Amino acid sequence: MAVYTDVQDEELAAFLATYDIGTVLSYKGIAEGVENTNYFLHTTAGSYILTLYEKRVREEDLPFFIDLMQHLAGKGLNCPLPVSNRKGEALGRLAGRPAAICTFLEGIAVRRPTAQHCGALGAALARLHLAGRDFGRTRRNALSIDGWPPLFAQARAEADTVSPGLAERTRRELEALRAEWPSGLPSGIIHADLFTDNVFFIGAEVSGLIDFYFACTDAFAYDVAICLNAWCFEADGSFNLTKGRALLAGYLSVRPLAPEEVEALPILCRGSAMRFMLTRLVDWLNVPPGALVKPKDPLEYDRKLNFHRHVRHARELGLAA
Amino acid sequence: MAVYTDVQDEELAAFLATYDIGTVLSYKGIAEGVENTNYFLHTTAGSYILTLYEKRVREEDLPFFIDLMQHLAGKGLNCPLPVSNRKGEALGRLAGRPAAICTFLEGIAVRRPTAQHCGALGAALARLHLAGRDFGRTRRNALSIDGWPPLFAQARAEADTVSPGLAERTRRELEALRAEWPSGLPSGIIHADLFTDNVFFIGAEVSGLIDFYFACTDAFAYDVAICLNAWCFEADGSFNLTKGRALLAGYLSVRPLAPEEVEALPILCRGSAMRFMLTRLVDWLNVPPGALVKPKDPLEYDRKLNFHRHVRHARELGLAA
Repeated sequence: MAVYTDVQDEELAAFLATYDIGTVLSYKGIAEGVENTNYFLHTTAGSYILTLYEKRVREEDLPFFIDLMQHLAGKGLNCPLPVSNRKGEALGRLAGRPAAICTFLEGIAVRRPTAQHCGALGAALARLHLAGRDFGRTRRNALSIDGWPPLFAQARAEADTVSPGLAERTRRELEALRAEWPSGLPSGIIHADLFTDNVFFIGAEVSGLIDFYFACTDAFAYDVAICLNAWCFEADGSFNLTKGRALLAGYLSVRPLAPEEVEALPILCRGSAMRFMLTRLVDWLNVPPGALVKPKDPLEYDRKLNFHRHVRHARELGLAA
Repeated sequence: MAVYTDVQDEELAAFLATYDIGTVLSYKGIAEGVENTNYFLHTTAGSYILTLYEKRVREEDLPFFIDLMQHLAGKGLNCPLPVSNRKGEALGRLAGRPAAICTFLEGIAVRRPTAQHCGALGAALARLHLAGRDFGRTRRNALSIDGWPPLFAQARAEADTVSPGLAERTRRELEALRAEWPSGLPSGIIHADLFTDNVFFIGAEVSGLIDFYFACTDAFAYDVAICLNAWCFEADGSFNLTKGRALLAGYLSVRPLAPEEVEALPILCRGSAMRFMLTRLVDWLNVPPGALVKPKDPLEYDRKLNFHRHVRHARELGLAA
């Protein structure tokens, strides 16, 4: 959400000279993307997003993300298409950082999605899952159940300063999740971070999915759970069942959920809430001095976790009976 | 240089509905402009910049700036043209802030200008001075000689913490400037802040001048002095005479300087260096906790001031003999 790396006009011109996309007409640092620097780039050939990958993205993971976006775009999914330079490479270096140029996607990130938006999002998520099926590569989800205890260890001692009892509640919940966590669910490429700021709409239609830098191989239904958490709760913490119904119906209109996926949905929602509570908690407790980005509230996800603890069946999340 | 005010998609749509510029396709907060929030806005009708005016711009001054840009654009100057809504108003309110939509200008702000860029800038500055001549309104320059003592008073007590002796050097220099400051020079609309980030180039040509929010009525040659300071010094603090020559020759190719303007140029350069040293010093000593913007170095302008103290004639700044 910030411009971390400044790009000089001469170095940009030199970088663009290795591509076949014309000369630069304008470029502006934009407030988009979680942890990378993004520029809106207009050339004589069209509009692009130039991304400089900052330190929190592991450089060795970048070829996976780039290849994945090229694969998905090739399948007709509306996602950024990394443009290859004259040597056929889509990943280069600029201003000392790994860098890529992707096609620009029109559309608006909706801050307060309606049920109609949730329905369109559900269908887009399922299309993403189908489009990724024959992508040949895999990437472990480092932020699933095995990744949570190390995160908790980083935050445990100070957790109660954020909310009394948070450390003990989280410890018990991690135990319960470990005991009940499903395995063997239908899996493949998931986005793993499909929050509202990563989905563009034009009117009621999804015009683009962006920010694939958490994409990995995991249960499709876990991605559904992440979206239920990100899209179907209101600002006051209440779960909007109408939105849950719309999201799940949208998803099911493209890809059916197997019985074991339906059964696992409540626990996957708890797990996904745990994942975002923990990463937010670690960030919350480690805000560097002079930080440009305000950390997100971990307690929003603690409350969602508490909601899901009382859910017994996917029907309560909106699945048609 | 930051997105201070967040604009929700619904409120943007409602705001745009009062204009005749189509519907929104995308908008991105951009890191541009000194103290306002700017969005790149793409609609079905074209590309625009949406500006939300933050607190440091006085709301009562906004009609002056908007009218001025409309006047200058009407004269053919490449500056943002504020778009009027269906009621004929170019200034509205959005997200609780005064807001305007201007046409988008292509081009790149050059960080390290060459002499060729300086020449083009000089000519563009003179065109701006000519285009503003028949603008009917005036605005006092609050940051000229009468504005410096109050700024110094704010910073004096702590000035030596920034550089030993700065308080006493500045006091003496303010006295000298007061004694020698010229009056009665040819005056009119000046930009008063034409730093490299406010000038766009495509190749060697100036494609746009932006950020008119310090524009005021003052001596044209003072604007020339501001540009000599902003464009013709190297990063190591040295004055590049070749760039000074190019800037002044570019200016003179469009508008001649009267003898009294030539004579005043060295003192105007000292004054302009004082102006930016003082505002930067005040900002430097008053960085709010959690500030998003790194303050600029006041000592850069203290060093420029010291250079100009030894200049006796505009020839030393690059004026052809």
